[in-house]
Amino acid sequence: MLDKLEKHIKNHLPFLNESRFLIAISGGIDSVVLTYLCHKIGLKFSLVHCNFNLRGKESDGDEDFILQLAEDLDLEVFIENFDTEKYAKDNKRSIQMAARELRYAWFEELAEQLKFDYILTAHHADDNLETFLINFTRGTGLEGLTGIPEVNGKFVRPLLPFSRGDIKNYAKEYNIEWRDDSSNTSKKYLRNKLRYDVVPILKEINPSLLQSFQSTLNNLQDTTSIVDDSIDAFLNKTIESISDNEVKFKISDFKEVDNPKAYAYEVFKDFGFTEWNDVVDLLDAETGKLVLSQTHRLIKNREHLLLSGLNSEENKILYILETDKKTETPFGTLFFDEADAIFGKRTNLIHIDKEKLKYPLILRKWKEGDVFYPIGMSGKKKVSKYFKDEKLSLLDKENTWLLCSEDDIIWVVNRRADNRFKVIETTKQILKIELK
Amino acid sequence: MLDKLEKHIKNHLPFLNESRFLIAISGGIDSVVLTYLCHKIGLKFSLVHCNFNLRGKESDGDEDFILQLAEDLDLEVFIENFDTEKYAKDNKRSIQMAARELRYAWFEELAEQLKFDYILTAHHADDNLETFLINFTRGTGLEGLTGIPEVNGKFVRPLLPFSRGDIKNYAKEYNIEWRDDSSNTSKKYLRNKLRYDVVPILKEINPSLLQSFQSTLNNLQDTTSIVDDSIDAFLNKTIESISDNEVKFKISDFKEVDNPKAYAYEVFKDFGFTEWNDVVDLLDAETGKLVLSQTHRLIKNREHLLLSGLNSEENKILYILETDKKTETPFGTLFFDEADAIFGKRTNLIHIDKEKLKYPLILRKWKEGDVFYPIGMSGKKKVSKYFKDEKLSLLDKENTWLLCSEDDIIWVVNRRADNRFKVIETTKQILKIELK
Repeated sequence: MLDKLEKHIKNHLPFLNESRFLIAISGGIDSVVLTYLCHKIGLKFSLVHCNFNLRGKESDGDEDFILQLAEDLDLEVFIENFDTEKYAKDNKRSIQMAARELRYAWFEELAEQLKFDYILTAHHADDNLETFLINFTRGTGLEGLTGIPEVNGKFVRPLLPFSRGDIKNYAKEYNIEWRDDSSNTSKKYLRNKLRYDVVPILKEINPSLLQSFQSTLNNLQDTTSIVDDSIDAFLNKTIESISDNEVKFKISDFKEVDNPKAYAYEVFKDFGFTEWNDVVDLLDAETGKLVLSQTHRLIKNREHLLLSGLNSEENKILYILETDKKTETPFGTLFFDEADAIFGKRTNLIHIDKEKLKYPLILRKWKEGDVFYPIGMSGKKKVSKYFKDEKLSLLDKENTWLLCSEDDIIWVVNRRADNRFKVIETTKQILKIELK
Repeated sequence: MLDKLEKHIKNHLPFLNESRFLIAISGGIDSVVLTYLCHKIGLKFSLVHCNFNLRGKESDGDEDFILQLAEDLDLEVFIENFDTEKYAKDNKRSIQMAARELRYAWFEELAEQLKFDYILTAHHADDNLETFLINFTRGTGLEGLTGIPEVNGKFVRPLLPFSRGDIKNYAKEYNIEWRDDSSNTSKKYLRNKLRYDVVPILKEINPSLLQSFQSTLNNLQDTTSIVDDSIDAFLNKTIESISDNEVKFKISDFKEVDNPKAYAYEVFKDFGFTEWNDVVDLLDAETGKLVLSQTHRLIKNREHLLLSGLNSEENKILYILETDKKTETPFGTLFFDEADAIFGKRTNLIHIDKEKLKYPLILRKWKEGDVFYPIGMSGKKKVSKYFKDEKLSLLDKENTWLLCSEDDIIWVVNRRADNRFKVIETTKQILKIELK
């Protein structure tokens, strides 16, 4: 007889039966149980583990434990070591954020390169509840209260409907062993405080708290989809034009709604603004008044608000010579190498036919009217239409650069290559371009 | 020097300086402090107290305490006794709900009759936080997480930005006495559990929890206004017609959105439906399929969903004879009395010129195309336009009845009288019609 956790995966996530996937495993009870579960019901998967080298011997002990587990269950396992502290320092991230970024970037790269369909993580209902309470305690908005989705692109979280208790019961039932994480970072402190002091009282008040919470999350996610539709429609109306360095919003649309601040927040939140009353005051201010964020400027100009990046350096045009092996750009370093063959399919890496290029190559922000021939598609497409189909946010659009050969787009950098420059049978020289 | 509570009222609610208002007082610390505060800064107000007769001698003790307080501060005081248990039983309400309905109905009636501009209640930030947590614990949606607004129509809550601690400090500073409520209903149990066991831990995690919470509420209220706009726009598109017994929705509009369930919920939630998956399945069902709630029916009919009330009794036409002194209707009892003069201005009461009536009067649901001459306005107006201007919900529209003399509307019942039947100088016989 199948356990309810096994049943859930069989019945509610049937696509996992048909695919090859990765399970992200830390060695803790949740991911170890997920591994046993998927093994028991005969799914096809490999393990992937990150050693963040943050807890010395304990980190290495986790790695050994996972290698042993993989051997016991006859599973392929990928392990990567990270110098998390260095990455955090170099990129001005908290250790927490650094580990998160490294982990997700590597998972996606691995899945992309080795053609895994999904990446499974072991988040469960109590994780979701604790995150809700953490965000609530700090102060948040709807986005902080909607939880993690069970399926989100490549990422699948099969244990999300289950409680920590359900997972413990499964581990006990099947005598499963795991590694306890002794780390006690401040985030853990907060989470533990909620886990051991707050959640038990809430569960005493409502013994089916997790079910109620799930329906709350569903309701809030539904609301989010309405808000998203509404803001999309609003942007379609209010944006008059987007140039490579400026987005032009019609003020009249903000004034037509009952609550302009609510819309201003949704439209401009990704650009670092925090003084929302000042932003709203701009609607009625004199031409020339402006509000600044760390990264952006919003200026009143007659009937419009103009949004532009603060750093004009970011918007200059870069030229790349045939002899350049690498170029520093505002968004990372581009490496140019000749290659013998095509290896890997990643968004940050393209292979092109070198003889089709006209040097110097041009690196610039996209602008309205740009057109390209997306690889894997027949015919051409407006870059703006491509953005729309890919559901890019305004911020993502603003941060998109194009690599060009004269007027022809070679690569919507880090997103999509162009058909015209792809490697074909007659290609003599392959140029590999990689963003790091 | 003004205390911060006094300053807040002076500076942030300046309209209170210019008005006459009621303070709803229970005798507890919050409403007693609010009374002292408003008295100290010299505002013009009277007290209003409900004796719900639920705690025997204690209830009477509260009443005596308030009479004494009113005398000490030289304030006018209105006290009303309610048989709350009977009302709850008769109307199938919880005691809690019954007390709430009785209280608010009486406050509004009093304010309306005696021309008070506002009604002040003493809700504070901790009340709001506890309500948020109660709703969260039970399972809710965005509407359960947005708190009470500081100003909402006639109701004003000047203490909403302040904590229970702030209020206690004020009481201590000015040696203010109050009555403790010893009742321990199940709702109180829940609230106390959160108040004493959960909230202190959250405040330990974040000492400025109440400020963070306030910004969370502001964000969620902003989101609510976007959702409301969005649903209004959606209803405008999807509703093809409203007849007296049926609302006709175009299915195609539900199918155009990414998340039809989210919209279906917002559109139909006031009509008692709970099986949202069934409602969504209707979009693709065969003609004739239906989903029922306790009160309504939603039927698929080719390209439309048809919403109608279950109880056809509710939709019949009633005739009122000149000799009728009262008529039972689906929405209450209408009383017809001759009157000597006009007294009171309430939505549930009109005075009209009897000689202008043609009997029998007709009582019916409104229908598309109905037109009337709203009192206080020159000229005529479509009833549908009136509903729109008054921002009536779909449910409110559906529940609106018209009292007519032949084809002429006398009264949009419980909302607005018609100019053509109003009492003028030449009126010989005044008919008072009251809904109870």
